[in-house]
Amino acid sequence: MRALPTDLVRLLTGDAVRPYLTDATETRGLRGHADAVALPGDAEEVRRVVEWCYEHDVPITPRGGGSGYAGGAVPDGGVVLSLERMRAPRSFEPLLWRCEVEAGMTTAEVRRRARENGVWLPLDPGAAEQSQIGGNAATNAGGPHAFRYGTARAWVTGLEAVLAPGELVQTSGFARKDVASYDMTGLLCGSEGTLGVITAVRLRLIPPPEVEIPVVAVYPDAAAGCAAVLRVLGSGLQPATLEYLDEGAASAARYDGGAGFLVISQVHSRADADGLREALAGDALSVVERDPVELARWREGVSLAVVAQYGGKVSEDIAVPVERLEEAIAATIEIGRRHDLPALSWGHAGDGNLHSTFMVAAEDASRTEAACDELFAMAVGLGGTISGEHGLGTLKDGRRYRDPALTAAHERIKRALDPKGLLNPGKKL
Amino acid sequence: MRALPTDLVRLLTGDAVRPYLTDATETRGLRGHADAVALPGDAEEVRRVVEWCYEHDVPITPRGGGSGYAGGAVPDGGVVLSLERMRAPRSFEPLLWRCEVEAGMTTAEVRRRARENGVWLPLDPGAAEQSQIGGNAATNAGGPHAFRYGTARAWVTGLEAVLAPGELVQTSGFARKDVASYDMTGLLCGSEGTLGVITAVRLRLIPPPEVEIPVVAVYPDAAAGCAAVLRVLGSGLQPATLEYLDEGAASAARYDGGAGFLVISQVHSRADADGLREALAGDALSVVERDPVELARWREGVSLAVVAQYGGKVSEDIAVPVERLEEAIAATIEIGRRHDLPALSWGHAGDGNLHSTFMVAAEDASRTEAACDELFAMAVGLGGTISGEHGLGTLKDGRRYRDPALTAAHERIKRALDPKGLLNPGKKL
Repeated sequence: MRALPTDLVRLLTGDAVRPYLTDATETRGLRGHADAVALPGDAEEVRRVVEWCYEHDVPITPRGGGSGYAGGAVPDGGVVLSLERMRAPRSFEPLLWRCEVEAGMTTAEVRRRARENGVWLPLDPGAAEQSQIGGNAATNAGGPHAFRYGTARAWVTGLEAVLAPGELVQTSGFARKDVASYDMTGLLCGSEGTLGVITAVRLRLIPPPEVEIPVVAVYPDAAAGCAAVLRVLGSGLQPATLEYLDEGAASAARYDGGAGFLVISQVHSRADADGLREALAGDALSVVERDPVELARWREGVSLAVVAQYGGKVSEDIAVPVERLEEAIAATIEIGRRHDLPALSWGHAGDGNLHSTFMVAAEDASRTEAACDELFAMAVGLGGTISGEHGLGTLKDGRRYRDPALTAAHERIKRALDPKGLLNPGKKL
Repeated sequence: MRALPTDLVRLLTGDAVRPYLTDATETRGLRGHADAVALPGDAEEVRRVVEWCYEHDVPITPRGGGSGYAGGAVPDGGVVLSLERMRAPRSFEPLLWRCEVEAGMTTAEVRRRARENGVWLPLDPGAAEQSQIGGNAATNAGGPHAFRYGTARAWVTGLEAVLAPGELVQTSGFARKDVASYDMTGLLCGSEGTLGVITAVRLRLIPPPEVEIPVVAVYPDAAAGCAAVLRVLGSGLQPATLEYLDEGAASAARYDGGAGFLVISQVHSRADADGLREALAGDALSVVERDPVELARWREGVSLAVVAQYGGKVSEDIAVPVERLEEAIAATIEIGRRHDLPALSWGHAGDGNLHSTFMVAAEDASRTEAACDELFAMAVGLGGTISGEHGLGTLKDGRRYRDPALTAAHERIKRALDPKGLLNPGKKL
């Protein structure tokens, strides 16, 4: 490619590019290549980079915190456009329940500032200290609280973004409702940087819960645990989170010496905690309340603890209708067995969202390919999806699992907004 | 046009077409024309109608309950595709908090069935007995409860729809999270039938509130009332609704002999009602709790009561950042004064969403055109939008108020999904 002019934007080249060539898929051996990393300082610089690249047919891979599990930030040549320098708050207005921040502010920082201002952003994807709010929007990120509070899209009221061939737009302002255009905000959310580059995010906030009470229930097996999940749903309670770990995940994460199946759910009031304990009871071996901070720290470590067991793992992200959760959990293990891969899962039970995982050293990650294909086919067969919250990135080919007519519409939209196919090429197919 | 084959779908022609030529904009004298009305009995018939029309270059105007205020269902030739016969429930699963219904089921019927099953759909646009759930999705309808619970999009987890040139697709299944494709669900929501025809809607439901307590506060003027609205927001309460009527609207609706300004807010617990009364107090002349059913009936009648005063009205739907509400309310009256039109407004205060209204007999509706233009410019000038919840329909030209780059993207999406421009032509521009 022709080199990006150095007076356009701060640039990294040569060896300095290396850290920008992978993301959380590094544990699966994924690594791309790029000629340069652009580090814009503001939205206008993003616009100029996109404009220049579009003019010179240079691919652009937008990059947030690089904590994605689908290879959405792994570049295939051209320029990595990292938002890391754009992390300023533009406005925090807690009395109006909203804020606007640049795309590169970390999720944890947004949450911290909200809390300091007496308001709350319920969005809690993993790796919050690393992941950026713009990346959360671009991937429509989930997390435990998505069960009650929705994914990133539910909290984004408007975006500032650069569209091809180099136009800075506001998809919507601070009005809380806006139907004056197609839902460009929603379209960019979850598009994984393939339709535009998000430069700032306007967020809706809410008052924080007065108390967080996590309840952990241990079951002899997945059947008993999944029945409890359905009891909680049927009870009419609306817990903030409703999570599970199967036996393998609980054991890897060293939950008090292990458990056949764990259900972890969090509520926001004393009365709800009592109701929740009752709904969870049934065949439970134990139902106990935990300290929220301690539990959150442990829960955040589950993924790494699983990696530690075999020096690697291939975690997939599928979702099924919640009543099919038990089948999907069992099928994950069964698929692993057929391919001689130890398998386990954990995830967002209330959303039917599994992180199905095959345990394998990083250098053997390719051994899981056939098993992953079966996993995806299983999810779709149960009426679900090949990605609940991680996205497609470079790892998943949606075309194999989508209705061809839906894929055709998807591709027409891509061509309409990125006619040269330069925005994060090869992703979200 | 070439006539639609009578063996394809049930058809109305001649005089029987007349009731399908207008919607709630009839009070503004809006009436279109069409050659036939297609009344499909199932999604496959919808698909065949779209396919035939697309093949023969015949425009299609999808029609829900015809209760829209923007002329979105007013046809400009071709075929009206009415969903009225498709009103079957496909599944109601209250223990899983969800249902799937055909697009033509009325909003009131969906809500009734949910209630009978012990669950709740918070979506409450006006004219619920007439409006259809498919139309609610297609317009991303709002209503009082949108303040806390979001607009239609927030409750739709997936759609069945017919895309051009005649493909039946499921945008998403019953998985509660799905990022395996661009957000086609969100894109169709609010597209006003210009990108596809919605044939069935999958909805998320929640447990109903235990109690509904509406509190009505009377203020001497809009300044005092809008200050109270901001106090309620700042209080950290999350009322289910937060509505207002200005002096003219309160008087037209005969609120106990009138009021300078009314704020009406609803909460779901005794404790919140006390907090709400406190937040509303300030300069209030009175703060009283009301019977929810009685109040809802009165509130539903506001629009008609306003019409009754002058034998017509032109109601517009704008939204501004909530802290600009007072300015927008004052500007509405001021714009009316300049054009010699009595003006008033009411609406969803918490969302900054005004139904700004010029009082005029139906036959003089055209006199309001210049005033409406000023109204839209005012909303955009305050950082808001020309439509909060009613949509653009035939009445509003979004191109005049949008960033040209956003309009370009909007139009590229339209061309991508409707290359012949046959889906509800002339709408949502």
